[in-house]
Parts: sequence; structure tokens; C-alpha cells
Amino acid sequence: MSGIFITFEGIEGCGKSTQLDMLANWLRANGKDVIVTREPGGTDLGEKIRNLLLDGSKSDIFSVRAEILLFEASRAQHVDEKILPAIKSGKIVLCDRFCDSTIVYQGVARTMDLHIVKFLNEFAVSECIPAMTIFPNISVAEGFRRIALEDSSRDRIEQEDESFFEKIRSGYLKLAKENTRFFMVDGSDNVEIIHEKIRNEFAKRFFKN
Amino acid sequence: MSGIFITFEGIEGCGKSTQLDMLANWLRANGKDVIVTREPGGTDLGEKIRNLLLDGSKSDIFSVRAEILLFEASRAQHVDEKILPAIKSGKIVLCDRFCDSTIVYQGVARTMDLHIVKFLNEFAVSECIPAMTIFPNISVAEGFRRIALEDSSRDRIEQEDESFFEKIRSGYLKLAKENTRFFMVDGSDNVEIIHEKIRNEFAKRFFKN
Repeated sequence: MSGIFITFEGIEGCGKSTQLDMLANWLRANGKDVIVTREPGGTDLGEKIRNLLLDGSKSDIFSVRAEILLFEASRAQHVDEKILPAIKSGKIVLCDRFCDSTIVYQGVARTMDLHIVKFLNEFAVSECIPAMTIFPNISVAEGFRRIALEDSSRDRIEQEDESFFEKIRSGYLKLAKENTRFFMVDGSDNVEIIHEKIRNEFAKRFFKN
Repeated sequence: MSGIFITFEGIEGCGKSTQLDMLANWLRANGKDVIVTREPGGTDLGEKIRNLLLDGSKSDIFSVRAEILLFEASRAQHVDEKILPAIKSGKIVLCDRFCDSTIVYQGVARTMDLHIVKFLNEFAVSECIPAMTIFPNISVAEGFRRIALEDSSRDRIEQEDESFFEKIRSGYLKLAKENTRFFMVDGSDNVEIIHEKIRNEFAKRFFKN
């Protein structure tokens, strides 16, 4: 049996990381072999690239082309070193952000040519396409409220203004409409309710009785 | 007046770095404002990426796609932060390796799809195309002899075998035939003679009397 590759996408504060952990716990409780990972990062090289990306955010002279190429380099390494080998050995891989983040952040919000973004994504991803993409959808206002509550140190992306977040959100909504692999869930619900919906959808798609 | 962008390409040991320095000195002696730079690297971010590339070489699990994306990320940053601003302010930029290195190392020698390599190059380079590319051509045997003489610590590329170097060299010869911006010079000549040829060709192409 070959494994399953699942990604989690959405605006900051939507609860995707919480839901990823809850799904991982449920799958493990059901005897599944689960790998939890994230982008950018996920490998030694990827984590170093992640640091370059966050450092670069402090610089006025950070090239937008360099930025997307670094994201894609991290992704290619992630796919080859970690995700594909895990899937081939029958594991379930849950990844916090993947190629759709690049579509909406660099393509939709930063208005980089979408053909270029898709070309770079396809090159980095190679044969590693998510079987399901879980998208907790919340309003931008709600995302902002949650981020403020966390009071954590912010990276550049979180410092962007509200219209930027609106673009991200509408980018995801469009992707969810166009791709059947997306599972959009109301992220304003109680976390347990969201988890149950995700778990049920996961079982429906992947566990055959 | 706008500046001039010149690149130096060739196999390891061909003498391009020596010739780059000699041309820079001659141009400076003639009152020109010259910037000397290299790839991968050339900027703070680029040098960090260069270190990742050299570190990655020690790893069995370094993705070939991640590798080329890192080269291109370094290049995009280099173009936006350093090369384009210098050219726009009228300087002469001499760069040790640029997009042609990616064509021959990743495309020709490592047989990555050339359409993909060219697409990535064009994306990273943007409007920054070299006005002249200086290519000291030597035999692979001569390159190996010179590298052995230097006795320096080797990076992965220098550890590649002879057939790899032959592929690199033939890749450059093909590029030189196809692109008028290339100036191929016999790299087995005396360094002063090579320098004179390069200097004369440079003057012919860019200094109008």
C-alpha cells in the first residue's frame, strides 16, 4: 500500500496547525504511521532556507524572484528527501502549507505572473501532488484577532496589512472552488467540531469499508 | 551613459578568475568604475546560499531540483541587489560565472531538461543579459593539471570525473558557437597574451574612437 499526502492551507490564524495536530493524533490512535511536516522547512536544508527567508524579510533589497526561488528550493528538497520516501513506504504525510501557499502569497497577493508561479511549483513538486488539501476558512478580521491574541513575534508576512490578507483569502477560495482535492471547512467553528468534520471527510476519502 | 555587464565562463582551471582580475585592473587604470563579483554569491544572501550549496554537496540526499533553484535564487538576488543597480549607474560589472554555468553544469552535464534550465535562467536573470561573455578555452587535461597544482580544498564540482568536465567543456563550446556575445580565447596561451586579446576585444566592442 502506498501512503497519503495531505496538505493544510489557509490564512494566518485560521487554525490549520491545530487541526493538523489533531488529525495526526487521531490517525496515530488508529494505528497509522504519520509524518508531520511544514513549509518552508521540513528538512535540514529547508530549515536553513526558512531562516534565510525570514532574515530576508528584514531587508529592503530582498528580491521577490529570489524569495519564490528559495521557497521552491525548500520544497524540492522536502519532496525528494522526506515526503516522497515517506509516501512510498506507506506513511501518511501531513504538511503545514505547500504549493498552494506559493500560488496565493506570491501569485495572487504579490501579483507575480501565475504561469511562472505554476511552472515553478510543478518543477519543485514533481510527482508529489497532495491527495487532499484541508482549508479552514475564516474571515480576515477573525484571523487578525487570533494573531493579536497569540502576541508572538511576527514575521514579515504577519505584518502585512488587511488587504493583503483579503487577497490571500480570496486566492484560497478560488483554489478551493477549482480543485476537488480541497476540503474547505468553516474555521470559525469550535475546534472539536472542525476536527470531526475533517476526520469524517478524511475517512470518507481514504478509508474504504 | 549606462554600464556594461561582462561574464567569465569556462571549466575549472581555465584561468577565468585570473583574467577577470587582469581586465578589472586594466579598466580601472583607464579610469573606469569597475565592480567585480561572482556566482553563486555576490550578495549577503547569495553568499549564504553559496554555503548551502557547498554544504549540500556533502549530502547524499541533496535534491538536484533544490540545487538549481538555489543557484537561481542567488542569481535573482545578485541581479536585483547588485548587478542591475551598478549597470544603471554606469559601472562595468565583471562577473565570475553566470547563467551559462547553469546551462552547462545542470543542463548539459547533469542532463536536466534544457527548456527548464533556460526558463529558470530567464526568470532569475530578468533583463540582465551579459553584453559579452569571456570564455578561456583549455583542454580538460590542462584544467585537471592546473587544479592539481593549486592543491586547494575541493568542492564537489571539482571532484567530478573527467567525462563530466568534457561535457562541461563541450557545452561551453556549443554556447560559444551559438551566441555572438561569447568571446572564446585560447586559454593555454601565456596569461599576458590572453589578457591582451581580451582587452583588445573589449575595446573593439565597447570603446568607440
